[in-house]
Amino acid sequence: METNISTKFVAELIGTFGLVLFGCGAAAVAGATTLGGLSGLGLLGIALAFGLSVVVFAYAIGGISGCHINPAVTIGVLVAGKIAAKDAIIYIVAQLIGALLGAFVLQQILGGQLAGFSPGEWAYGSNGWGKGYQNEYGTTAAFLTEAVLTFIFLFVILATTSKVGNSTMAGLAIGLTLVLIHLVAIPITGTSVNPARSFGPAVLAGGQAISQLWLFIVAPIVGAIIAAVVWRALEPKEN
Amino acid sequence: METNISTKFVAELIGTFGLVLFGCGAAAVAGATTLGGLSGLGLLGIALAFGLSVVVFAYAIGGISGCHINPAVTIGVLVAGKIAAKDAIIYIVAQLIGALLGAFVLQQILGGQLAGFSPGEWAYGSNGWGKGYQNEYGTTAAFLTEAVLTFIFLFVILATTSKVGNSTMAGLAIGLTLVLIHLVAIPITGTSVNPARSFGPAVLAGGQAISQLWLFIVAPIVGAIIAAVVWRALEPKEN
Amino acid sequence: METNISTKFVAELIGTFGLVLFGCGAAAVAGATTLGGLSGLGLLGIALAFGLSVVVFAYAIGGISGCHINPAVTIGVLVAGKIAAKDAIIYIVAQLIGALLGAFVLQQILGGQLAGFSPGEWAYGSNGWGKGYQNEYGTTAAFLTEAVLTFIFLFVILATTSKVGNSTMAGLAIGLTLVLIHLVAIPITGTSVNPARSFGPAVLAGGQAISQLWLFIVAPIVGAIIAAVVWRALEPKEN
Amino acid sequence: METNISTKFVAELIGTFGLVLFGCGAAAVAGATTLGGLSGLGLLGIALAFGLSVVVFAYAIGGISGCHINPAVTIGVLVAGKIAAKDAIIYIVAQLIGALLGAFVLQQILGGQLAGFSPGEWAYGSNGWGKGYQNEYGTTAAFLTEAVLTFIFLFVILATTSKVGNSTMAGLAIGLTLVLIHLVAIPITGTSVNPARSFGPAVLAGGQAISQLWLFIVAPIVGAIIAAVVWRALEPKEN
Repeated sequence: METNISTKFVAELIGTFGLVLFGCGAAAVAGATTLGGLSGLGLLGIALAFGLSVVVFAYAIGGISGCHINPAVTIGVLVAGKIAAKDAIIYIVAQLIGALLGAFVLQQILGGQLAGFSPGEWAYGSNGWGKGYQNEYGTTAAFLTEAVLTFIFLFVILATTSKVGNSTMAGLAIGLTLVLIHLVAIPITGTSVNPARSFGPAVLAGGQAISQLWLFIVAPIVGAIIAAVVWRALEPKEN
Repeated sequence: METNISTKFVAELIGTFGLVLFGCGAAAVAGATTLGGLSGLGLLGIALAFGLSVVVFAYAIGGISGCHINPAVTIGVLVAGKIAAKDAIIYIVAQLIGALLGAFVLQQILGGQLAGFSPGEWAYGSNGWGKGYQNEYGTTAAFLTEAVLTFIFLFVILATTSKVGNSTMAGLAIGLTLVLIHLVAIPITGTSVNPARSFGPAVLAGGQAISQLWLFIVAPIVGAIIAAVVWRALEPKEN
Repeated sequence: METNISTKFVAELIGTFGLVLFGCGAAAVAGATTLGGLSGLGLLGIALAFGLSVVVFAYAIGGISGCHINPAVTIGVLVAGKIAAKDAIIYIVAQLIGALLGAFVLQQILGGQLAGFSPGEWAYGSNGWGKGYQNEYGTTAAFLTEAVLTFIFLFVILATTSKVGNSTMAGLAIGLTLVLIHLVAIPITGTSVNPARSFGPAVLAGGQAISQLWLFIVAPIVGAIIAAVVWRALEPKEN
Repeated sequence: METNISTKFVAELIGTFGLVLFGCGAAAVAGATTLGGLSGLGLLGIALAFGLSVVVFAYAIGGISGCHINPAVTIGVLVAGKIAAKDAIIYIVAQLIGALLGAFVLQQILGGQLAGFSPGEWAYGSNGWGKGYQNEYGTTAAFLTEAVLTFIFLFVILATTSKVGNSTMAGLAIGLTLVLIHLVAIPITGTSVNPARSFGPAVLAGGQAISQLWLFIVAPIVGAIIAAVVWRALEPKEN
């Protein structure tokens, strides 16, 4: 079965749409008072929303496009020599459109109800750091966090989908890695490790989210490239 | 091994019974004070209850009936050309009976203890929107939420159970998608994406739950049909 | 590879030991104030502790003894015709010893620290109902809860381990069913569906836990037997 | 495909680095106030962070080094006769370096922000007991907890990776066992069962964490050795 590039384009678009809808959607409602005082999702719920989205789409569209739904993943896979540059560009365009569409649908559903559809500074589930963003970590901490965690993310992706990995469990392991990344990094940067996931909400939120967008493009890509280089050196060769 | 339709009927009935018993049961007790101040299940616990029920029954009865336990799923699968219309009707009848039975058993266990066996307006775990229901989202937000999320649900179901999916992991991916749907939508509509799951509690709760039942029938079916049409266009063909 | 009965005995003993150690242990510490105000495990943590214990031992000792670690499961499997009566008795003895040992080790670790090593009436993680136990549900509610939930538990066990199940995922599905059962039933009976799990803590707690132990033996066994009978009627036959 | 020892060394180093980064990182931020009052990770989030790290690296580097990322595991596997002594030493050196590196990177990211990057006595996510550490359990309780829980951990590892285990699910079962261990033991010792995981933070924290480090080396190793001996007696032999 051969899958053509337009099918892959649609798959990447729907997958990234779903990632932003579930992940940023959970972040938006996580603090909402509801149902007579039930405890909200909290940080654990948001972390699961982002990570399990990757699990779910890995098994849905992994067989079609490989389920990157993240430009840093596509670039890491490109450096590892497992996708053509021409296809990589199409993937990234699909991811950006999907993320923007996901943020837009969330705005339509929640926009009139919750200002910026989330509490305080985390408008539209956007990422950030420094003055006015959560615990106000510095730029170095934010960059280091995003680069190191994307390094581990890509390392797990390349290893689990290689010949020494288990093809049945790879999607679960990759998505759970994204859960782990969020468990640590939500209080620092809101957790991106995915330029598309930052791009969608930032376009709608504007302001600081747009002016800080560069870090959530550069740092994940740096981490992804390092992981690809390390993996190429480490990968067991067939005789 | 051939499974006859009456076996499938019983399987769908038991599966939908379990989904309502676990899902609405968790919703009913989620806010209860218990055990000297332990924190209750909260929204995350309710989301897991609904979603993991699908995981569990997917592996229990998936090999018998395909484990639809949801009329919107059956209609989506029908539009995708993977079940006969005659069987689909029998499936839906089984699902409605199972859901009603689940809500009835919950009422027997919890009814005398908690008024409506859940806090405030979410009587019997019923779905709703607008005045008097949780955060009072509007009809458009409720319809959009249910339709879009059922679209993603059916997209994942059709993709993971197709030739490009992984048959071992499909049940897990599908159930986790329902977890994700609940993470976002509980504060909006209580989350249905399943006409049978709304029908059971509504019959016992009456009132607004009955008068609003139409949306939880129409919106999920609309989302499911669109997903089936998209998937038919996208599905990789064998040569 | 043939496994002799004494190996199975040790496996069932260790598995039930672990189930009580993890499940009742989590219940005992779930409400403890710790680490400068971190939120405790809550009901969700306790539910995961019991259910994931079954997942874990299913993959560890499933290939040795089938991982019953529950007399109601052994009796259900016996009625379904999949274990010899002679072996079933040995399994149940191992389960009772393992559960008692698990409760005893917990007492050694926690006993001097927390009175009864758990808050208030739920001494030693024991099950119960009625006056003085949690929300004070009645005997009928307690019996119905334990019987219906054990029915679903055994139904899932028999279905997932049958020819129409998926042998790789059966252990996960069975353990997640126990998570679901706890999500609903902790505030009602503390959740047993397992006579051995009730037996261990009751012996150490004495009093009401011992005088109410009968229900947590009878109701799960009734539910298990009904499930086995239903499954025998439903199970797809080979031609 | 043959993997040479230097590749295994790097794999063990990265895996242990990730375990400490995710596990101790989650512990460090678990109590942080964030995002306008969202509930933090709590004990459940920390338990998942440690356990899911093992799941993730089991599937990433299991095919390279077996994914021990824990000296007690390496020693248990050595006693069970499944690794050479020469390789075991190299594994343990890699684990200690990786753990130290993980704690160091965490310190760089969080150090300037949160004193000791975690609330109160649990500085740097270090383990401990007695006066000034959490609920102030005694030495016997701490030792018993660490030894018994490592016994179960190694028992599950040796069983699930044996001929009677399921190679696809072993990594998931092993990681979930570590989740269970944390659910019970965080309020007692902070949970180690892994000398390397204790070593990294202790070196940076100094003081009591260093003077108590011996227990988190000795007790896990004792538990691991007993498990290996029991498993050798129990393991089904091929004819």
